[in-house]
Amino acid sequence: MAKSPWSTPITEALRADGIELGGIGLGDIELGDIELGAFDTSATPGFRGDKKSGERLLAERGPVLSDLQEKLFANGRSGDPRNVLLVLQGMDTAGKGGIVRHVIGSVDPQGVDHAAFGVPTAEERRHHYLWRIRKRLPRGGQLGVFDRSHYEDVLVVRVHELVPPDVWGRRYDEINRFERKLTEAGTTLVKVAMFVSLDEQKKRLAERLNRPDKYWKFDPDDIAERGHWPAYREAYQDVLDRTSTEYAPWYAVPADRKWYSRLAVTELLIDALRRLELDWPAAQFDVEEQKRRLAAS
Amino acid sequence: MAKSPWSTPITEALRADGIELGGIGLGDIELGDIELGAFDTSATPGFRGDKKSGERLLAERGPVLSDLQEKLFANGRSGDPRNVLLVLQGMDTAGKGGIVRHVIGSVDPQGVDHAAFGVPTAEERRHHYLWRIRKRLPRGGQLGVFDRSHYEDVLVVRVHELVPPDVWGRRYDEINRFERKLTEAGTTLVKVAMFVSLDEQKKRLAERLNRPDKYWKFDPDDIAERGHWPAYREAYQDVLDRTSTEYAPWYAVPADRKWYSRLAVTELLIDALRRLELDWPAAQFDVEEQKRRLAAS
Repeated sequence: MAKSPWSTPITEALRADGIELGGIGLGDIELGDIELGAFDTSATPGFRGDKKSGERLLAERGPVLSDLQEKLFANGRSGDPRNVLLVLQGMDTAGKGGIVRHVIGSVDPQGVDHAAFGVPTAEERRHHYLWRIRKRLPRGGQLGVFDRSHYEDVLVVRVHELVPPDVWGRRYDEINRFERKLTEAGTTLVKVAMFVSLDEQKKRLAERLNRPDKYWKFDPDDIAERGHWPAYREAYQDVLDRTSTEYAPWYAVPADRKWYSRLAVTELLIDALRRLELDWPAAQFDVEEQKRRLAAS
Repeated sequence: MAKSPWSTPITEALRADGIELGGIGLGDIELGDIELGAFDTSATPGFRGDKKSGERLLAERGPVLSDLQEKLFANGRSGDPRNVLLVLQGMDTAGKGGIVRHVIGSVDPQGVDHAAFGVPTAEERRHHYLWRIRKRLPRGGQLGVFDRSHYEDVLVVRVHELVPPDVWGRRYDEINRFERKLTEAGTTLVKVAMFVSLDEQKKRLAERLNRPDKYWKFDPDDIAERGHWPAYREAYQDVLDRTSTEYAPWYAVPADRKWYSRLAVTELLIDALRRLELDWPAAQFDVEEQKRRLAAS
């Protein structure tokens, strides 16, 4: 079973900033193994506030994230190879796009490298499944975002039996080795699995069918996928159990409340960036000399 | 001489929305050729408001831009090949990065494809100068942003004589042909040249030298470049004169006032997107049938 350390960062990053939410207070930290069969997708662990206070807090925390990201970017420009890679996984309608828009949208686009991994192209299928992933890894200083990722190759690929079990079965260890190398090369992985309930998904799909401005988000295949829900849960359980490592842990985020999952991912990113202990890069030139040159120019 | 149509869109997009700025009103439209030697970099053409009203207006216009961009993205997802490519050129400190942060930052990062073109790498130098550009062209539905571009190959390359005059001299026509093909394939080019005065640049460079959190933005070479100011002006004049076409016009934006240049580029993008006359894509499925399927799932 995977450890569920996700509520620690949200609580600790907030605590470090002395945020108490006007007396509402922070929730208890629940650490332990995650059993998806009993996972409460409507919970807001680590946070006792309501929607309104959650949204207000998110608005406050965006600039905090943005400042940290700018420092990461500045260090990257000065040659620091470190970067942060947010990996987003979740069933359709879980809110991955909303995270990109409302969390990543608060930072400078110059420092963001966003990649969405859909159904592989013909060219991608001719390569190893990590080929297209490696091509989109963030450079030093970047905040990379993977909307879906190499985990699709042990999720949809497994559920739909696109390769034999012994093939996908070998991928967990391979992914762990891949991610260990990534972290050794300077990448901080923030892996977020977003979980909605089958009912909440139904509501969100219905909204897409009721609003002509949302039709483009709807795919008839999404309904067929609902029939595979238990198989996906099993596949996600294995992902959490087998690929949540010390160097690249999974964070299982309840996603029935969009405001909560956005806040949680914001805090996870703030925490990841703080752990890099970034400072502004030192001048790689003599400041006083440059001031004189500038004055004379 | 290049036509200067840039003040038309800012005025017309605002007028279309009935924005009159609380009685401050919009400026007159000045159309005509641009003579950089007489270009007022501190002007705010097309806009009579002050900084405060400009910033307030920018905050209002971000969501307008964001809504239009979402429609572009939605159409791209439905197979529409059209896209918009913002090309940013300008001397150091002209504010290209600020445009990305404060204008592009208002739209969904999922639909943004940002590329910065610095000094070419060894690999890039072994290829035609358009090679690295072609690799980063936006796909259908994307809002591409080029922070510097192929125009560096008739600017810095010309000023520093990195290739002989007959080589860079041929590039203007080549760029025009390249851009015509791009527009024929569905790209709307928004080419923005940002101009600051030599004095304003000095102030901005001084700020970078006075603030340790800005050191990373300073490059000693920027001071040497100031000595080439007249050569750059000449090179920019040729760019405007020879590559401002009906299908891909240049917009020369005064950039001494950051709030103004951000507002101007926002309006240019709003105008470009409006001209695509985008609607939400029609459903590519039977909505009622899908509702029944969903209800039964």
